[in-house]
Amino acid sequence: MAARAQPLRIALAQIDVTVGDLEGNARKIAEYAERAAGEGAGIVVFPELALTGYPPEDLLLKTSFLEETGQALEALAVSTKGIVALVGFPEYDVDVYNAAAVLADGAVAAVYRKIYLPNYGVFDEQRYFQPGDEPAIVDLGDGAATVGVTICEDIWEPGPPATTAAASGAQVIVNLSASPYHAGKGIERERMVVQRARDSLATFAMCNLVGGQDELVFDGHSVVVDQDGEVLGRAPQFEEALLVCTVDPEAAEARRLQDARHRAAIRRTREQSSGDGDAEAAVDRRAVTLARVSLGKESRVRSDEQPVGGRCAPVMGPEEEVHSALVTGLRDYVDKNSFERVVVALSGGIDSACVALVAVDALGPARVALVTMPSRYSSGATRSDAAAIARNLGAELLELSIEGPVEAFDGVLSERFRDTDPGIAEENIQARTRGLLVMALSNKFG
Amino acid sequence: MAARAQPLRIALAQIDVTVGDLEGNARKIAEYAERAAGEGAGIVVFPELALTGYPPEDLLLKTSFLEETGQALEALAVSTKGIVALVGFPEYDVDVYNAAAVLADGAVAAVYRKIYLPNYGVFDEQRYFQPGDEPAIVDLGDGAATVGVTICEDIWEPGPPATTAAASGAQVIVNLSASPYHAGKGIERERMVVQRARDSLATFAMCNLVGGQDELVFDGHSVVVDQDGEVLGRAPQFEEALLVCTVDPEAAEARRLQDARHRAAIRRTREQSSGDGDAEAAVDRRAVTLARVSLGKESRVRSDEQPVGGRCAPVMGPEEEVHSALVTGLRDYVDKNSFERVVVALSGGIDSACVALVAVDALGPARVALVTMPSRYSSGATRSDAAAIARNLGAELLELSIEGPVEAFDGVLSERFRDTDPGIAEENIQARTRGLLVMALSNKFG
Repeated sequence: MAARAQPLRIALAQIDVTVGDLEGNARKIAEYAERAAGEGAGIVVFPELALTGYPPEDLLLKTSFLEETGQALEALAVSTKGIVALVGFPEYDVDVYNAAAVLADGAVAAVYRKIYLPNYGVFDEQRYFQPGDEPAIVDLGDGAATVGVTICEDIWEPGPPATTAAASGAQVIVNLSASPYHAGKGIERERMVVQRARDSLATFAMCNLVGGQDELVFDGHSVVVDQDGEVLGRAPQFEEALLVCTVDPEAAEARRLQDARHRAAIRRTREQSSGDGDAEAAVDRRAVTLARVSLGKESRVRSDEQPVGGRCAPVMGPEEEVHSALVTGLRDYVDKNSFERVVVALSGGIDSACVALVAVDALGPARVALVTMPSRYSSGATRSDAAAIARNLGAELLELSIEGPVEAFDGVLSERFRDTDPGIAEENIQARTRGLLVMALSNKFG
Repeated sequence: MAARAQPLRIALAQIDVTVGDLEGNARKIAEYAERAAGEGAGIVVFPELALTGYPPEDLLLKTSFLEETGQALEALAVSTKGIVALVGFPEYDVDVYNAAAVLADGAVAAVYRKIYLPNYGVFDEQRYFQPGDEPAIVDLGDGAATVGVTICEDIWEPGPPATTAAASGAQVIVNLSASPYHAGKGIERERMVVQRARDSLATFAMCNLVGGQDELVFDGHSVVVDQDGEVLGRAPQFEEALLVCTVDPEAAEARRLQDARHRAAIRRTREQSSGDGDAEAAVDRRAVTLARVSLGKESRVRSDEQPVGGRCAPVMGPEEEVHSALVTGLRDYVDKNSFERVVVALSGGIDSACVALVAVDALGPARVALVTMPSRYSSGATRSDAAAIARNLGAELLELSIEGPVEAFDGVLSERFRDTDPGIAEENIQARTRGLLVMALSNKFG
């Protein structure tokens, strides 16, 4: 029998990457891997498709991009030392797979291919990827944990591949995620992971992407949950973090002896798989072992050295969470597209005031120009409210009257519009005049 | 041995339907089925998802819409008499399938489910549908043809299900399509069908959708191709048509005896399928028979009665084809969205002149308002060209000067723009002023 598995220090590198910036993303991955090794972690997990950013969309239709990604991964493998790193990347091998590379000992030791490709809501993965069909475990060597590898959607579906990895001996299931935010999503996702950990009697370590990418916001909120559903570690929401957590593989094994309810399901799966040879249903340890790699000596943890667990960031309340999501989404949109500043039109009402607040929180007052564009219909209170908002936010306020342009439009159209009732056309002339002025300021100073 | 298969009169109902208009689409399907029966056809084929229109997109996420579609199909089955009709519809049975209903004898005799769901380019079918996995043939009774049923993408992939249907005894393969247009697509698609017919030694009858639906244009160009790759019938491009064509199932059978090259492939498939039970690979006639229905007596064709073949519309040249596509797309966009008329801005240049021409060809001059919006930079020739275009097209021309609004914008922004070089911001003010005027006219009179 193999030596009992000692505790494992696992790091979740919750990073904010930029779609298409292979060089910048690879540099950040290398930095976090080095930091994780420095903190004594034996294994570090990065988000789904961390190397390319998520979602890479039509970049995946370019062979040159896929080849450069492969080269960047090889270079990263060479530079990654003293730690096993799981890095999300698109694997190009005849077809394209949403994959996780196992980097160990200066090389790409193995590649796992995501099985469940979401293609609903914001997801379009069946447009770009061929699914994998084999669950995978990585054996960290005698006296160390066995780790099941999954990617995002793989654990949103109950059952395989996570249950297969657990039934094949994995005490720890890692998950590389790029799971986008909506209000309340973080705690919903954490509870799902808790249930999966209980269902598999395994420690789950889910590393989620953080940051905004075009119309998506990723909230981070990575978690490590033990076999009893206890949250051992939680990374903060909406910011980059390296969560390092010590987990105890032996506790999962001990729990499985006490709680034998899965034996029937495993036996049933074995009976089925012996008939049709379906790899997904396999629960043969050898069949699903993707790689056997060795933890560096310096990252071996003795069970009496380190307490199990890690830092647990608090979970935000609903308003702070939504505000943080908006700030994150706007900041990354502006910065990743290299815009210098933004123009926000203030009506004096609450909606545009909230937009201005988010803009100043995201970018600082120096990068936000506020503009109020009164018409003959604007009240004095409306105008003084706009001024108060600008003063409170510390941002510049510009006042441009739309009277002149609107009168000029009325003049041009007067003959044509004669004998018609004022309505949506006239109202839209005002709104579009304001839009034109904001665009002119943006073109000139943006 | 069964009686030899007599000739079959097959009708392709190349119709223009509207997404979501179940009532209107069902009425049109019933009319075409009646016309086809009146012309002595034994079977009539409609386009893919003809009942809902293509692509129904998020309507497919509403249970009420799916249920109403099912009711509309049942009603259609009851009213369809004296002909076997193949009608495309989304089948709702636990999950949703892109399906073809076989309507016969006042009922839905069977349903085929599309196997290959395209999810690239303009297609998103894996977002909405579960794929089927069984090829299907419909037996029209003793002395009549056996018909393989396929839907669009099913025949863009070489091999099953079409080859399976042929290997199981189908002499005729019908295909319900909603295959969108791009320049040159019609003849490319026809050549693909020719190759499939030769590969399966079967007559192929492909009924394509016609008309514009939002950003897509369907070109029609339905074809019937015999087992030797001869085009027996071709419906016109970009217009509704009922193509009736007599085909000879016995000729396909005779050709298969002469040309036995497929025997090896069929034997190989049988050997494989006996191992893994894969329905897609089955070439057992009983296994793939979806339904056995009877042709009405009045639609039985005696081989000495009717010559094989049907009308063959000519194929348009490249310029006529592109022009027709633009006209079709614009006309259906305007009409299906119930817009009364359109406004086209004329610069005096060639691009806007072409847009005006397409608009007048699509809608007639009475539904097109042309507007020219000169600035201080517009030449006299530009203005007289716009007038000549309007005169030649017979459409109303309006002249609105942008001088006043542009000067007013310059005035509002002068302080802010002082000491900057004129550039993209100033140019865009002119362009957006023109856009604002066109939108005002559209809001007022559209």
